This record gives sequence, structure tokens and C-alpha cells, in this order.
Amino acid sequence: MAGSTFGNIFKIASWGESHGKGIGVVVDGCPAGVPLTEEDIQIYLNRRKPGQSRFATPRAEDDVVEILSGVFEGVTTGTPISLIVYNKTQRSSDYSEIASYYRPGHADYTFDRKYGFRDYRGGGRSSGRETIARVAAGAIAAKILQSLSVEVHAYTKAIGNVEVDMEHFNADEIFQNMLYMPDSDAAKRAEKLIDEKRMQTDSVGGVVECVVSGLVAGMGEPVFEKLDANLAKAIVSIGAVKAFEIGDGTKVSKAFGSENNDSFMADDEGRITKRTNHAGGILGGISDGSDIVLRAYFKPTPSIFKEQRTVNREGKNINVNIKGRHDPIIVPRAVVVVEAMTAITVLDMMLMGMTADIHRIKRFFDDLR
Amino acid sequence: MAGSTFGNIFKIASWGESHGKGIGVVVDGCPAGVPLTEEDIQIYLNRRKPGQSRFATPRAEDDVVEILSGVFEGVTTGTPISLIVYNKTQRSSDYSEIASYYRPGHADYTFDRKYGFRDYRGGGRSSGRETIARVAAGAIAAKILQSLSVEVHAYTKAIGNVEVDMEHFNADEIFQNMLYMPDSDAAKRAEKLIDEKRMQTDSVGGVVECVVSGLVAGMGEPVFEKLDANLAKAIVSIGAVKAFEIGDGTKVSKAFGSENNDSFMADDEGRITKRTNHAGGILGGISDGSDIVLRAYFKPTPSIFKEQRTVNREGKNINVNIKGRHDPIIVPRAVVVVEAMTAITVLDMMLMGMTADIHRIKRFFDDLR
Amino acid sequence: MAGSTFGNIFKIASWGESHGKGIGVVVDGCPAGVPLTEEDIQIYLNRRKPGQSRFATPRAEDDVVEILSGVFEGVTTGTPISLIVYNKTQRSSDYSEIASYYRPGHADYTFDRKYGFRDYRGGGRSSGRETIARVAAGAIAAKILQSLSVEVHAYTKAIGNVEVDMEHFNADEIFQNMLYMPDSDAAKRAEKLIDEKRMQTDSVGGVVECVVSGLVAGMGEPVFEKLDANLAKAIVSIGAVKAFEIGDGTKVSKAFGSENNDSFMADDEGRITKRTNHAGGILGGISDGSDIVLRAYFKPTPSIFKEQRTVNREGKNINVNIKGRHDPIIVPRAVVVVEAMTAITVLDMMLMGMTADIHRIKRFFDDLR
Amino acid sequence: MAGSTFGNIFKIASWGESHGKGIGVVVDGCPAGVPLTEEDIQIYLNRRKPGQSRFATPRAEDDVVEILSGVFEGVTTGTPISLIVYNKTQRSSDYSEIASYYRPGHADYTFDRKYGFRDYRGGGRSSGRETIARVAAGAIAAKILQSLSVEVHAYTKAIGNVEVDMEHFNADEIFQNMLYMPDSDAAKRAEKLIDEKRMQTDSVGGVVECVVSGLVAGMGEPVFEKLDANLAKAIVSIGAVKAFEIGDGTKVSKAFGSENNDSFMADDEGRITKRTNHAGGILGGISDGSDIVLRAYFKPTPSIFKEQRTVNREGKNINVNIKGRHDPIIVPRAVVVVEAMTAITVLDMMLMGMTADIHRIKRFFDDLR
Repeated sequence: MAGSTFGNIFKIASWGESHGKGIGVVVDGCPAGVPLTEEDIQIYLNRRKPGQSRFATPRAEDDVVEILSGVFEGVTTGTPISLIVYNKTQRSSDYSEIASYYRPGHADYTFDRKYGFRDYRGGGRSSGRETIARVAAGAIAAKILQSLSVEVHAYTKAIGNVEVDMEHFNADEIFQNMLYMPDSDAAKRAEKLIDEKRMQTDSVGGVVECVVSGLVAGMGEPVFEKLDANLAKAIVSIGAVKAFEIGDGTKVSKAFGSENNDSFMADDEGRITKRTNHAGGILGGISDGSDIVLRAYFKPTPSIFKEQRTVNREGKNINVNIKGRHDPIIVPRAVVVVEAMTAITVLDMMLMGMTADIHRIKRFFDDLR
Repeated sequence: MAGSTFGNIFKIASWGESHGKGIGVVVDGCPAGVPLTEEDIQIYLNRRKPGQSRFATPRAEDDVVEILSGVFEGVTTGTPISLIVYNKTQRSSDYSEIASYYRPGHADYTFDRKYGFRDYRGGGRSSGRETIARVAAGAIAAKILQSLSVEVHAYTKAIGNVEVDMEHFNADEIFQNMLYMPDSDAAKRAEKLIDEKRMQTDSVGGVVECVVSGLVAGMGEPVFEKLDANLAKAIVSIGAVKAFEIGDGTKVSKAFGSENNDSFMADDEGRITKRTNHAGGILGGISDGSDIVLRAYFKPTPSIFKEQRTVNREGKNINVNIKGRHDPIIVPRAVVVVEAMTAITVLDMMLMGMTADIHRIKRFFDDLR
Repeated sequence: MAGSTFGNIFKIASWGESHGKGIGVVVDGCPAGVPLTEEDIQIYLNRRKPGQSRFATPRAEDDVVEILSGVFEGVTTGTPISLIVYNKTQRSSDYSEIASYYRPGHADYTFDRKYGFRDYRGGGRSSGRETIARVAAGAIAAKILQSLSVEVHAYTKAIGNVEVDMEHFNADEIFQNMLYMPDSDAAKRAEKLIDEKRMQTDSVGGVVECVVSGLVAGMGEPVFEKLDANLAKAIVSIGAVKAFEIGDGTKVSKAFGSENNDSFMADDEGRITKRTNHAGGILGGISDGSDIVLRAYFKPTPSIFKEQRTVNREGKNINVNIKGRHDPIIVPRAVVVVEAMTAITVLDMMLMGMTADIHRIKRFFDDLR
Repeated sequence: MAGSTFGNIFKIASWGESHGKGIGVVVDGCPAGVPLTEEDIQIYLNRRKPGQSRFATPRAEDDVVEILSGVFEGVTTGTPISLIVYNKTQRSSDYSEIASYYRPGHADYTFDRKYGFRDYRGGGRSSGRETIARVAAGAIAAKILQSLSVEVHAYTKAIGNVEVDMEHFNADEIFQNMLYMPDSDAAKRAEKLIDEKRMQTDSVGGVVECVVSGLVAGMGEPVFEKLDANLAKAIVSIGAVKAFEIGDGTKVSKAFGSENNDSFMADDEGRITKRTNHAGGILGGISDGSDIVLRAYFKPTPSIFKEQRTVNREGKNINVNIKGRHDPIIVPRAVVVVEAMTAITVLDMMLMGMTADIHRIKRFFDDLR
């Protein structure tokens, strides 16, 4: 079954393994007329690159994107945009041992059961390098959204038990610390936690929050293709995400209706907004004009240096010490991935949202004549 | 855009409004040869029926399902199964007032913005009655899963701040109380909370948990069509759900790798299982043979009797007291809806999972010759 | 696998068997704001009804459509439109014999091989009654197309070896004869042929031509989702169609480039048209602003009274005389089916064609703010 | 809208322009465990390469395929297979003139109308080079089909008015002449015709026939996803195809039921076949176990050296002499393209056909435990 294709109108097909020739993505359904350069995409890719901080793996990666098709004289043509990032040559020997057993918390076992065998080099298709394709495609979606006055921004909300104090939220701070946290004080405490866990040869998880602003009301489809349902799929499809929230998320289960309902208000021009935004910008699966607010909860990196119990391919119980270079945290690198998947989903649903009303459709085709 | 269609191989198309002629669903892609009666489906529908308890709306509904096609001599034929539940005649006048303003927490405003107008009778397409279609289709999926040795069971995990004590989990208890809670003590406390909130003309939310047992390892597709990603979409597409969790869910963000990793173990026959199940039965988006465990967080019913501020269709700020009959809680009725959407998704991904390995495909076609 | 669902944005799910409770269709993705009555649909259904002429089966059918959802106060709401046509009670005994053997030219054998058994009453799902769903959905598509200034018209081009003389093409004539031929002289000769074949207990095929006028240039997508490719699928999916042509069709294989190329010409305002239309209105899979012209070739009705050789379900060679009431020709009744499938496909591709160009998309969303 | 993606389970995403960096395809949904080398694909690509004969353009192309992902140690892994063929550097100046006007018979005008502009270098995305992606993906599909005992073979049936004499059909001859004709005498006459047309600076069309043998009965889905409907879409999506036939094709419209019906027969073991194959191996849209026989009708190459009338981008009528190197015929190069699209479609429908019957599904999952 084809599992590496995502989206309906703005559709992406991702490919590549961690230790194969490269990672790439084909963006099929990108509108024509969008100015696009490799630089536009590279900026996003650099945000997920490791080696930028002491919290990421020290591998000297250099993920340079190349546009292979779909752009002519600096502008998208409407035909598929093929993007490639070549993998740098790496010694596969680092990973040869893991072929023989199943790493806890990884997809080794499930791939073996699904396909009968697997590409064991560095995780193969289930490696985090797969997110290069998501981010590259997301950069294009984000650029188009900007031209439609929609902005998508993500940041680290929490690392382990260190949470950002939303009273001290400072957007400018996000790119000032290695952890992409909008609160310098929390960032410092989180750094300390990560250092501590690294010393203990352990790892830690965290939370990424993403805000979509400027989206017109009316996007998302009733029943199954709700905007939040599609965002949930997009976000949970990111490796290591174990929970998804929209608006107040899990908290709503303990709230009362009188607290949780956002009342509407109109300004002097009759422009309607909501007094609060517990709903996270979505009512009945359709955008209501407020900010979309979502959160992704990431598990701690499964690759740790501690001794662990597991089973080898022969079905024997063994103890293992997994070698290699491990991140004690993947959350900071995942921030741009959440942003990318959100952008792709929102753009796709905006394009799908153009056919809801016959009067708008008529106007569209009248303009073409 | 078509938003009422769900699934890839086992595909459903849902239709109907709360105060129209009826609610229905077409199940396209159901395998042939499945024994199926209206009774099989009615049992599931009865679990979402209101009027069973003092916690549900006192409307005298009677949702009787009729099979219109796709079953011949008691067995599915492989062609579309059309199911219909007629709405009983109801006075639409109850709802005439709400046409003039936007109810807080409802989809009135977003439908108006999306389509230019809406069917305001009882919420129209965004009414909870829409879930009849989900449950009817889910009953068929559940029956097929059972024949494949897969069981899906949901129950109420929490109502407001009253949580089930998992130490006292008792599956037999689930159908012994009106709230579908597996803990009679928690059920009693929850009933008290609901009564209290009803007196205060307020409402309360809750949590539904769902467990899938017996699923073979290897189901779910890498990258975008992960089993958990599709479950997330299925569950968040249910009205009022604001958060989705798989396995340990939001808790993983505060766990350390050494705690969160589930170690593998083999029994004497080399049969592999996990010592713990923090992962909720899914690794890398693919089932690992353990139970799938997911949770849906429901907001409190937005329909409350308290006076609320809002805006009318003319864009004026007004105060409203919404009349009608309101549930102070929808969670108990949503239990079977979560079960249904989970069953549909798991079955669809099992059917998609049949094409992963050429050796199994060869065996399949060799058997046909 | 779900085979009864068609379309991307304007998506239909068809259901029902010839001798079940009824035939229906769910139209998911119909834009809101379209005035729609049952009469609009009934007019189309009446064109495929048998019993209108001596060339159709004398069964007293009466296919009355009912709208079950998706229309509120005479206007579509944007949510699924469910349509149903109940089957009149019929003696199934007419068909009991055919359960025991495979009728030549029918799908009896292939259904048995696919599903292990079949609903043998009157052909079940493979009966011509299935086209009721196509025509009902097509009536809606045609109505929307008209509001977008696009007209779709089909007629009988040939019956057996009697072809319409295109020099004497008379659109007014189409509804003046039982065969929907635009040439009264050809219609008379065709009637004679059909009578002759009926006497010989034989049957005859024919050709339906369909013209789409008023379609703007630019609709259809490069490579796989070409407008003509989607029309080909739509038309060949109609039972009994064995060939599909666009423009000059099969004749192009014998033409030379200098004859077959349609040269462009501009009028004084720079409006571009083609001097000829060998291409049938499509270049590179995209509409060019000329009329779309396509043809469907229908095989003779397989149900004939002559003795035929076949095999029974026990695998024995037998001779059979199939009883029942047979049409010596299905082409006239298929005219509106071709029109319907063409309308559905063209509308779907117009809706998909709205997202090709970022400048038009920007204008669309600017209008919404 | 995403138009470069094809297939449901075996899904391909094609990309690239004639004068961009290259042409490629991502095959998502290929089963794991298939031995696959670049050589397997190259053999198919070589069959569409120009420069092999005096009937193809004299450009020195050299389309070498590279596998970028999805294959590990010579075997497919079940994850996406990315294939690339780099374009050799070519002087774009050859094509600079055609940017200013619309070539008759080409997609220049429709691309301009669709997207607002186009990549005018050598046709851009509408160039015949796009078929490299189809053939590369088709080679993989064909290899898998062979392992399932299904063979797909295409050949040239006619060039202009020179038709193969099916009485002298000789499969061995197909690869013995430049035109891929199974009849050496016809090949000689066709070569003469082509030479003649080249002298006259004109071009000629033709017919490709494709036969699928070894396909089990029961593949293809009722109503819209019929096997022949999907083949029709696949074949008509190939540039220059203007008609599609299955079995007897257009001829059926003049046949009588008594001639056209294929009677069934059983051998001593009760194995059922048909005495004739007018149906082309498909009844009710489902394979019947006989050979699938289809035909594609190609128009003459639109690029000719003769002076032609057209319109320039400023909307002025002009006469043009299109320079460059033109094939007088594309049919021989299209043979492998028809074979590829047929293989992709048949494989996809076989994979979809695995979920028709619950008893087979049960057996499949029982085997997995």
C-alpha cells in the first residue's frame, strides 16, 4: 500500500532512506506562478539540521536541497516539483550490529514483521531523516500560505517537565536559543535538564506548539475531512508523536460548558470574532477565523546508551548496549517538521475549500472568460 | 469538496441531517461472504441511542436501521451496503430561533461562512445524529474484525475530574452502568457530578478509551499512512473531540527514554512480545502485536441553558438563552462512536496491509488458480 | 475494494441491485447554493426509463426519485445529497433459473469467480438498473454546468450499420424519435433494423456521441488526470461499452499530420479558436475551448432468445434458452447515461481546475476577506 | 490539482520536463521482496529510446536510469522506489522561437490558458519524454506480474493504412523490425509509407495492440472501477492517443448479439473458458480468465516541417515553419509505453482484487499468525 503519499490537491510523495543515496519529495499539485528558489527551501531545512547545537548529534551533515523540476525561470509551472537532498557518504558499519536484534522503541521489529526483512542501515525508511522530505515540501506550502496572508509558526512548548511560561511568551526569543523556546528562562532550565539526562545516558521528550494565523473562516469539511482531523493525521504521522491536541486539548474533558464555550462578539463593522479561543480556531471541523492552535507531544528519543533488554532475530532474549551517536532530545529539530506538516495540511484544505459555494465558483469561471 | 467519505478499501459515504428525512451510510468495499443482519447493526446503534438514561436527552428517538442493498440471503455480496435510519417526525419549530444567531461552541457560524447559509434545523449536518452513520458502518467493520480474531472495545475513562481507577478495571461493569464505565465506584461519583452540573444548567466533558486486541503485527504503513495517524484522523473527526492519545499519550513528553522504551521479550517458542506497552501497540506507525490503546478527549456539551453572549446574523451583539433539550454530557453516547471509528480504521488498514510482501501476494494468487 | 465511488471533488457513491429494495446514490461534494428539485432529476431519469417505446422492455417500471438529504428549502446545502429510487416489487421467479448457469456475454461467471457467489436476481449489481444512480447524479452535475454556461448533449450516432448522416444533423429531431437520433431518416431505417433483429430473436449495438459546449480552455490536468483520460474511464465504466473515441478517434491512425493538425486562428479581438476540431476539444489532455466531442460504442444486448451454448455452475456444458423480457437494443436508453457520466466528469475536472494558478487563488481568497 | 500521480495501491508519481534536469518517478506501494536491478528497468527504457532506427529522431539521447531508493541488497524493501533519468545537456536555443506562438496539435495553447504561462523548452511537461517515467515504473510492474504468471505484450498493429495481417501474426518478428510489428511483410510496407511521408515533410499515426495473458478471473471492480475503465484511463492518458478499444472494440456496434456473445465451455476437469473472445477478456468490468486484448489509436506526430497557420501569443494570425528534429511517427516508440501503462493498471487492480472475499482474507491472516 502506498503510505508515502500525502494530501489531496497539494499532494506530496516522499522517498528515501537514512543511508541510501538521498531523500526526496515530489510535490504534485503546486499552483503555477509561485516564485520559488532553492534558498526558500534551504532556510527551512537548516532549521532541522543536526550539529547546530550541543543537543543534536555531532554528525557533520549538510543537507543541501536541489530543485529537479517544476520551476522555470524562478517560478513554479504548475507541474510536479521534484526535490532531492543527497546523503553524504557514511560508514554503514556503525549500524551493522543492529541488523541482528530489535532496538526497543524503534520500528525494527514491526518492519521485519510487515515486510519479512528491512533495510537496517540507520533505521532505513523509519529514520528521522525522512522528515527532510516533509520540511522541504512544507517550505513551499508555507511560502504559498504567506502569499495568501496565512502564517504558520511553531516553537518548543515544553521539554520534559520544563514548560514555557506563556505569560513570558516572546516570539523574538524563539530563534535566539538552541531549543526554539519562546522563553529564555525556560530554555536555560531545559538545557540544564538535557545535559543532565545526557550524562545519565538517558533521553527526554517534549511538546511542540504550532499557531496558524490569518486563516479565513470556512476552511475544513464537515464530518470526516475536518480541518482538525486532517491536522491530527498530519501531526501524528510524525515519528515519536504520541498525542495531538487542538485548542485546550485534553483539558476540555475537565472543563464545564460555561467555561469552555467561546462567545462570539462583533465589532462596529459587524466583523465577528470570539472573546476566547478554547476551541483553537476550529468549530465543527471548520476554521472560525481565530488562530489555529495545536500541540504535538513527542516521546523521548528511543536511542539511549543504557543497557537494555531485547530479542534478537533468532528469537533469543539478549541484553544490548546500542552504540552510535544519539540525540538526548529530538524536540528542537522537530519544531520545523510540525510547522511543515501544518502548512501542507492547511494549504491543501484551503485549496479544497474553494469549491464549497456555487456563487464563488461562478465568479471564478466568469473571471476566466 | 467531498468530506463525508472515509476509508480507502473499506470506504464509507455518510449522509443526512438531524431534521431531514433520515441518516444513512453507504459501505463500499465490504468483502463478500460476511453473514450480516439488521440485528448485528441495531445492537451497536442502540448503544448510542439517547433516552436510555437520565443523562441523555429525553427525546423519544427510535433509530431503526434498514439494509437497502449489498446483502443477499443474509450474506454480504461484495457490492455496496446501503443503510438507512429514518428520522421520526419532529417539530422543527423548536429550532427556528437559532437560525437568527450563532450558538457558542457550535458550528453555526463556520457553516454560514463556508456555504453562505446553513440548514439550521437542529444543527443540520453538524448534529450529533450524524454519528448514526459511523456506528452503523462500524458495526459491520467490528463484525468482520471479529471473524479475523480482532476485538475492539471502548469505555468511558473519565467524566469531568472523575477518573476510572485502572486498578479496579472491570470489563463486565461497562454495560452495567449508564455511563459505560469499567468501575462502578467511579460511575457513581460521575453520576453525581453530572446531576450537579445539570442542576447548574451547565455541562461536562470526559475521556473515552479504546482497546484493540488480537491485531497481528505489521499493520499500518510507514511515513504518512501510519496506523496511529489514521486513528488520530478517525477519532478527531468525531464532533467535540479536542485531543487524541496513543499509548501513554501526553505523558511521554515528561518521561525519560529508559522508562518509556518497551523492551522486547521472547517466550520459549520464540514468540516475541513487549514487557510493557507505553507505545500503545504501535511502533513506527505499524502494529507490534500488543494491544492498541487510544484515548479521545471530549469537550463539555456546548448546548447549555445558561445565558450566553453571542452575535446574530445581522452582526449585532446579543445575549441568548438557548431553549430545547440538552444533554449535560455526551461522553457515554460517544463510547460506541469511538469504537466504530476505530474498527473501521483498523479493518481498512488490515485490508491495505495485505499487499506489503510479494511472497504473501504470490501465495494468495497461487491459491486462486 | 470500493468500486462504486467515482470522482474527486464532486464524488458519487452508487448502490443497489436490480431486484433489491432500490437503487441510490450519494453525491458528496456538491457545492452549496444550487437550486435543486426532484423534478430536475426526474426529467433525466425519465429519459432512461424503459417502456417508452416498442424497442424497450415492456416492464412497467416507474423510477421515481426521492431526495433524502442535502437540500434545504429548495437549495443544496453543500452536504451530501442522498437520492433513492425504490424498485417496484417484481416476481424474482423469472430469474431463478439463471442462478444455475452462466449467461454468455453477462457478468455471471466473473462475479462468481470474484466473490465466490452472486446475487443472481436479474443480474444483481451488474444489471443495467445500476445506471439509475449515474443518471440521477448526472442530472445534478448537468444543472450546475448549465449555471456555469456549459452544456452537455448526447444522441444516438448509429444503430448497427445505420449511421446518422451528419450533413442532416438536426438537434430538434433528437427528442422527436424513440431512438434519440438527430436524423429522422436514419431513425426510420434503424427502427426497421431493430424490428428485424427482434423477429430473429437477435440484438443489435450502436454508437452514442456526446458534445460538451461552452467549456473554458484550461480544464484537465497534465499526464495522468487528462480530461480525455478521465472521460475515457467514465464512459468505459458504463456496461456494454467496448470502445471510446475523442475527436476523430480511431480515424487519426490513418490520417497524416498535415490533415489532422487543427490550426489556430484569432478574431479581431485576439480571441483564439481552432479552424477545425479533429482534436475533439482537447490538446495535451486539457480543454482548448472548442466543443468536446466523444463517442461510446455499445455492444449488442447479450440477452437474446436464441439457443446458446454455455456452462452450468457444476462445470457441465449445456445449451440454454434464456427466458424473460429482453431489449433487442440498449443504445437509446444509454444516451442519457453517456450524457450523465460526461457531465459528472467535466464538472469534477472544472472544480479541480480552480487551483492551477496562484493568481486566481489569491483573487479567490481576497474576495473572501 | 495533482495530475501526475496514478494508481491506488501500486501508486506512481511522475515528474520532469524535456529540457529540465531530468525525468523521474516515485513508485509508492511496490511490495517488498521483489528482486530488482537497474538493468531490469533499462531494458524497458531502451525500447522507447529514439535514435535506434531511421524512423526516430536522430538526437543522441542516452536515457540511463538510476535507482535512488527502495531497493536494499538487490531486493525491494516495500518503501518508495525513486527512479531518475538525467537529461543530457541540450541547446535550448532550438526551441526559443516556439515560445512566441502556439504550435498546432500541441499543448502550448492549453498550458498557457491553464497556468498563465509555460515552460516552452521542448514542450516542457507535455513532451514525449514524460513517458520515461511511465516505462520505468511499468518495468517494475511487469516484473512483478511475471512472478505472478501474468505476461503483458504490446506490438504495432497498424501504421497509417498498413495493417498487420493477423493470420500471419508472428510474435518472434516483433523485435526483428524497427517498427515492432509482428508481421515482416507489413513492417516493410509501413517503412515505405513512413519514408514517403518523411519526404513529404508529413507524419503518420498508427495503432498499438496489447495482450495480457495469464490473468486469473475475478480482477476488476463492479460499476466504476472496472478493469477496462481503468485501462481506458491509463491508455488515453498517453499523449496522442485518441481512441481506446477493448476486445472487438468499435466493431461491436455493428455486430449482432448472436455473433458477439462468447459462449462458455468446460473441459473435462470442469475448467471454464470461452469459445471466442470478442469481449477481450473482460465481462462486467471483471477479468474472465481469457486474454485481455486492447488497442490504442495514435494520431500522427503534430510536429511537421510543412508551413502551418497559427496564432502568436499576441493574438495575431501568422504562418509558421516549425524547425527542429521531428519524428514522422511515434507509434513504434509508444509500444512499450502502452505495455507499461497496461502492466501498472493490471497489477494495481490485482492488488485491489485481494480484498473481495472474506474467506480469502481470513486465510491470508490465518497464515500470518
